[in-house]
Amino acid sequence: MSNPLIAELPAQPVGWLADSGPDEDIAISSRIRLARNLAGRPFPVHATDEELSAVADRVITAAAGITEKPWWRIDICELDGTDRMILFERRLVSRELFKRPAGAHLLMEPDEQTGIMVNEEDHIRLQSLLPGLQLAEAYEKIDRVDCVLAEKLDIAYDDKLGFLTSCPTNLGTAMRASVMLHLPALVLENRIAGAVQGIGQLGLTVRGIFGEGSDNRGNLFQISNQSTLGESEPEIIDRLGRVIAKLIDHEKNARRRLLDSRMNFLLDKIGRAYGCLRNAYILSAGEALNALSLLRLGVDLKMFDHVSIHTVNNLFVRINPAHLSKLGPPATDPGNIDAARATLVRTMLREK
Amino acid sequence: MSNPLIAELPAQPVGWLADSGPDEDIAISSRIRLARNLAGRPFPVHATDEELSAVADRVITAAAGITEKPWWRIDICELDGTDRMILFERRLVSRELFKRPAGAHLLMEPDEQTGIMVNEEDHIRLQSLLPGLQLAEAYEKIDRVDCVLAEKLDIAYDDKLGFLTSCPTNLGTAMRASVMLHLPALVLENRIAGAVQGIGQLGLTVRGIFGEGSDNRGNLFQISNQSTLGESEPEIIDRLGRVIAKLIDHEKNARRRLLDSRMNFLLDKIGRAYGCLRNAYILSAGEALNALSLLRLGVDLKMFDHVSIHTVNNLFVRINPAHLSKLGPPATDPGNIDAARATLVRTMLREK
Repeated sequence: MSNPLIAELPAQPVGWLADSGPDEDIAISSRIRLARNLAGRPFPVHATDEELSAVADRVITAAAGITEKPWWRIDICELDGTDRMILFERRLVSRELFKRPAGAHLLMEPDEQTGIMVNEEDHIRLQSLLPGLQLAEAYEKIDRVDCVLAEKLDIAYDDKLGFLTSCPTNLGTAMRASVMLHLPALVLENRIAGAVQGIGQLGLTVRGIFGEGSDNRGNLFQISNQSTLGESEPEIIDRLGRVIAKLIDHEKNARRRLLDSRMNFLLDKIGRAYGCLRNAYILSAGEALNALSLLRLGVDLKMFDHVSIHTVNNLFVRINPAHLSKLGPPATDPGNIDAARATLVRTMLREK
Repeated sequence: MSNPLIAELPAQPVGWLADSGPDEDIAISSRIRLARNLAGRPFPVHATDEELSAVADRVITAAAGITEKPWWRIDICELDGTDRMILFERRLVSRELFKRPAGAHLLMEPDEQTGIMVNEEDHIRLQSLLPGLQLAEAYEKIDRVDCVLAEKLDIAYDDKLGFLTSCPTNLGTAMRASVMLHLPALVLENRIAGAVQGIGQLGLTVRGIFGEGSDNRGNLFQISNQSTLGESEPEIIDRLGRVIAKLIDHEKNARRRLLDSRMNFLLDKIGRAYGCLRNAYILSAGEALNALSLLRLGVDLKMFDHVSIHTVNNLFVRINPAHLSKLGPPATDPGNIDAARATLVRTMLREK
């Protein structure tokens, strides 16, 4: 059966994309994720169903009442495949969480900006997601939740190694900070490879929109810290933030250069992408993502008065299969997801 | 120097496309062309400059006052290359006329529907062009002009061979009747080859938009009679008209079949074509023609309230290089004809 809380989501704007954020022309969202484990209990991947359930009970009890509005509490094990994928497409859970036979939960503030995955790779995965470039703000939000949990729970911590985590690459702060950047001009100028290479040398990682292993369709790049040891949380955020600021500068310069020297090429690429989104009746995910990316650039260049950058951001999420199969204005060919995608996009980009 | 009469043309709708015509959803225009020569004078291709000029004087004098509004009289030899090509793109003259070193003229009614080429392959080429399927009407119009000229001039005629013409394939009636058909659904259904083959077997010819040797870009097909001997003018027109009526039926059936069985495929193709036309900033002639063809089909299917079939018909002519270089809203990249074409198309398809 479908979860009534999740049933409401697909038609709603994605919570962490609803507001405007700093540098949103290029930085789509900022995310902080903290990994925590209860002392003396096996990591989820080695735990029995009873141990998973016991951990879940402890965490859920401790988390109660922390936030202003009560958590949405979603038992992942009870969800059908579509509901799970809706949460995944909205970046509220990872695929790892689906692997647990018991005790897998998502606690989420109704605005989708703060969440706790219970029994993912670690017992506790705290996540804060904000629009635009807001790493420090996201950290501050999630740190408050973390502090309350730490008072109520016996968190596994070692004075030398820091927070103990299921995967050793997370030891130390156990924090992953990441920013989703939209870098279409650097891609159009064939400068992206150089930029990405430089980032690797700075101890940072670049991934696609859906994390590890996903490609960079839509010219979307998630930049995150690789190492969690030897630096404090503010140091990591500060270092990442400075690299992000540079990338944003590079992208802005690339946009300016394209406008100056290849304006018609740029307008043509963007115009055709919009024309396709606004008029196609069959649209694959890949084509939609790439066209939305160009449209987003066009919105930034003020080419489209009637399209807001938030509409485009939301479409990045809502063109995905689970959202379409749940929501959809009815597809003309029933069951044809590419037709449903085209209908959604055409409708959402309609001139008012 | 540019001719002041021609300078006005590029910004104007094409005269023979301005009105509505019967079956205009599929039949774009109908044309009758009659070839005539003055007795006892060499054909233009063998004539001296003096002989060409003498023929021109005779014909122009005889033609004066035939029509309600005075002819536009255009001395082709005085025109620059762009002006010549504007006449050609509007189908008012043939390239053959440009080859004469002297005495090449166009007499044209201001509505562009009736014209006389002087010293083309023959001394006199009378042409009547009407929108839609109006072969009999076009013949009637040009026959009136022909009759008056025949009274005033000594026309080369043989009781057995009929009208004598420079090229023996025109002997007899010296009439070429043709209809320009728009057959996108037969092309989409891959049935066009069979249809065209059948036409050949009926003694008819199929050509592209710009006559002999031009391809069928834009899904435009000119169907005309091959033979001019052994049948009267009304017989030729009647036979051609019956084949045209069958082709129109075939195309209508194909449109219906596509709508019934492959609607989303059809809407998608048409939508994308419109999206491209409405939003591109760089547009080649070939891409524009093919997209306009799909848009024309979409207009017939009532997909686009704000676009009239006359706008599309006119764009078929006005996207050509001479029109663009003469008229243009100024191209963003100066001298770039593909940019000027995109600007014209974007502007003319704007939603009111």
